[in-house]
Amino acid sequence: MTETSVQALALRAREASAVLALATRESKDRALGAMADALVERVAEVLAANAEDVDAARAGGTPDHVLDRLRLDEGRVAGMADGLRDVARLPDPVGEVVRGSTLANGLELRQVRVPFGVVGIIYEARPNVTADAAGICLKSGNAVLLRGSSSARRSNAAIVGVLRDAAQGAGLPADVVQLVPAESRGTATELMRARGLVDVLVPRGGAGLIRSVVEESIVPVIETGVGNCHVYVDAAADLDMALRIVLNAKTHRPSVCNAAESLLVHADVADAFLPRVVAALREAGVTVHGDATFATHDGVEEATEEDHATEYLGLHLSAAVVPDLEAALAHIRRYGSGHSEAIVTDSQAAARRFTAAVDAAAVLVNASTRFTDGGEFGFGAEIGISTQKLHARGPMGLPEMTSTKYVVTGDGHVR
Amino acid sequence: MTETSVQALALRAREASAVLALATRESKDRALGAMADALVERVAEVLAANAEDVDAARAGGTPDHVLDRLRLDEGRVAGMADGLRDVARLPDPVGEVVRGSTLANGLELRQVRVPFGVVGIIYEARPNVTADAAGICLKSGNAVLLRGSSSARRSNAAIVGVLRDAAQGAGLPADVVQLVPAESRGTATELMRARGLVDVLVPRGGAGLIRSVVEESIVPVIETGVGNCHVYVDAAADLDMALRIVLNAKTHRPSVCNAAESLLVHADVADAFLPRVVAALREAGVTVHGDATFATHDGVEEATEEDHATEYLGLHLSAAVVPDLEAALAHIRRYGSGHSEAIVTDSQAAARRFTAAVDAAAVLVNASTRFTDGGEFGFGAEIGISTQKLHARGPMGLPEMTSTKYVVTGDGHVR
Repeated sequence: MTETSVQALALRAREASAVLALATRESKDRALGAMADALVERVAEVLAANAEDVDAARAGGTPDHVLDRLRLDEGRVAGMADGLRDVARLPDPVGEVVRGSTLANGLELRQVRVPFGVVGIIYEARPNVTADAAGICLKSGNAVLLRGSSSARRSNAAIVGVLRDAAQGAGLPADVVQLVPAESRGTATELMRARGLVDVLVPRGGAGLIRSVVEESIVPVIETGVGNCHVYVDAAADLDMALRIVLNAKTHRPSVCNAAESLLVHADVADAFLPRVVAALREAGVTVHGDATFATHDGVEEATEEDHATEYLGLHLSAAVVPDLEAALAHIRRYGSGHSEAIVTDSQAAARRFTAAVDAAAVLVNASTRFTDGGEFGFGAEIGISTQKLHARGPMGLPEMTSTKYVVTGDGHVR
Repeated sequence: MTETSVQALALRAREASAVLALATRESKDRALGAMADALVERVAEVLAANAEDVDAARAGGTPDHVLDRLRLDEGRVAGMADGLRDVARLPDPVGEVVRGSTLANGLELRQVRVPFGVVGIIYEARPNVTADAAGICLKSGNAVLLRGSSSARRSNAAIVGVLRDAAQGAGLPADVVQLVPAESRGTATELMRARGLVDVLVPRGGAGLIRSVVEESIVPVIETGVGNCHVYVDAAADLDMALRIVLNAKTHRPSVCNAAESLLVHADVADAFLPRVVAALREAGVTVHGDATFATHDGVEEATEEDHATEYLGLHLSAAVVPDLEAALAHIRRYGSGHSEAIVTDSQAAARRFTAAVDAAAVLVNASTRFTDGGEFGFGAEIGISTQKLHARGPMGLPEMTSTKYVVTGDGHVR
């Protein structure tokens, strides 16, 4: 696909976005409901396309865990439909007055939430993202350009076909949802160059994908996802609580960005805590990559510098003993990715220092890093977890998918 | 200056920012006061450096209006000091709880304002920006890297020297304010590549500067300033009011981004309004570049396509008659830069349609475009006017110079 063609899609998205931006909540929710119903009705079509993708991927030697992410079944499609219905039930962020006042000269000032306009999503081989992202963008009033993985292209085309038909049937332009062909890498690049046509790009996927979008894009990007998250067990920690939190943060769902990847333990409690935590992690199937102190325990592998910097996304954990809280903070400053950092402590002073000094999207006190999540935070829907500081930081729900404008009303005011 | 040296400055800024982020409002305000006092006390030093810059620029054939922006005098330096004292009086944005709730499981969630960390400002030959930007960054808890124009380098070095001494005297690290040498263009490029060390770049200056930063930077950018602002005089306008607003928007301060650059008039009132507005603009020294209808009036030059797209920043105005409101909206969609767009109308329906459909940082009803300004909006200080949709849109005050983090507190919560 040529540059011109991606630009043509973006131009159609802009046209559609002008209509969508002014659509009522009622009409958006009706479209979301229709999209959910259509996915269920036309599930056979979606599954047939998906089966072709899965067959092609298997024939190409794709590993099983990737095939699993690619594979859809009736339950997963029903889950996508439920997701769209959930988004329909959430409040409409568009039109919310964020700030308002009457100025000294009588001018009325209102800062009002408005859609971005056109949002681009670049993502990997999870076809469910196609429906999720389309739903969140539609509800927040944004036309969306979906650029998924080439390996999911038949599934994505089928899903987007269903969603477009349903949107149109509900009275919105079909072009509020468009799929950008994934046959060549060039279409992603063109999306990244479409400044002025595309308002925001959100990459969703692994660290490599995100880095390449951040570095290449001249369209503003919201960076999501990489989480090298730490749990720090303070001298004043309740060690039973610490054990529960470490195990949960590491093993509850190891493949996601808010899973813990590193454990830091205050030297004062190392003797009491290390034998317990090492044994429990081992029993849970976790390989510990520890410093010299940890390495005196059975089954712990000696950690390299790289271990501390690694987001394993699996059953591995780097670990170190630190002389004090300040050393823990320095370690996190050095290796953390600014996602989620937890402290376990009963000390008010330690908790206060940790929450103030750690520079991350989320800082957790006596709670698992797994809570950094739009669903857990009560946002109802989540497009991703921002690890950047501009615009949105942490889980991004519907309001984070909007901009604002100032509406200023006078009666002939001049300066 | 080499890449390594700009990186070294950025590393020092990061160190200083960790201290500044935790500084109390009291200590920041004390530093701002000390900086203001020091500028007044050491004004001779600043003016001597400035005189060298002005002499060199004049010898190099710099035009008078640029020399005027470069030139400082006692009054201007006193103005810079007053600006710093004004910022000291504003509330501290850091620590503000933006959102907070107790989740169903008892976790306490707080979204708290925190500084970005390190902010880079790339700007042109206005030495007063040096003190203004330093003050706003310091109050919002950000270490700043100031990369001004080479032609103002002696003035900037003198001002930054004074500010650093004062900050240090007040107990903050001197490196909260640093000047990036402007001898070569390379230092600006290095600043744009310093992702991970610099959190945000704010370019301030002309369209060319801003475009180059937006396109080259891999550090997140807040785009400021370009304003191709329109005043649309509706069929239902009070024409006396319309005349006052057009004249004010165009002539009150023609060189700034919120000045009007284009006039659109509904066909129904063209006969009544055009003779009056053309005569009044002419008397005010404004050259009108008009469409065929406007061009039937004395002194109006025929507008080219380029005129409609031009931000004149001077006593020129493009002008056209439009058949209806929708045509005005289409014209603004095509030529507007998303800064400030005004409608003059007594029709509730027209005002509602215009404010909903125009996609800009500020939409004004019966008020001059000149009101889009941090001072006018009551923000107290302004780092610039964002014309992008991400993070901040419109005038940016202290809160816009911050990010947030989530603080999540539990008592052993796991999932």
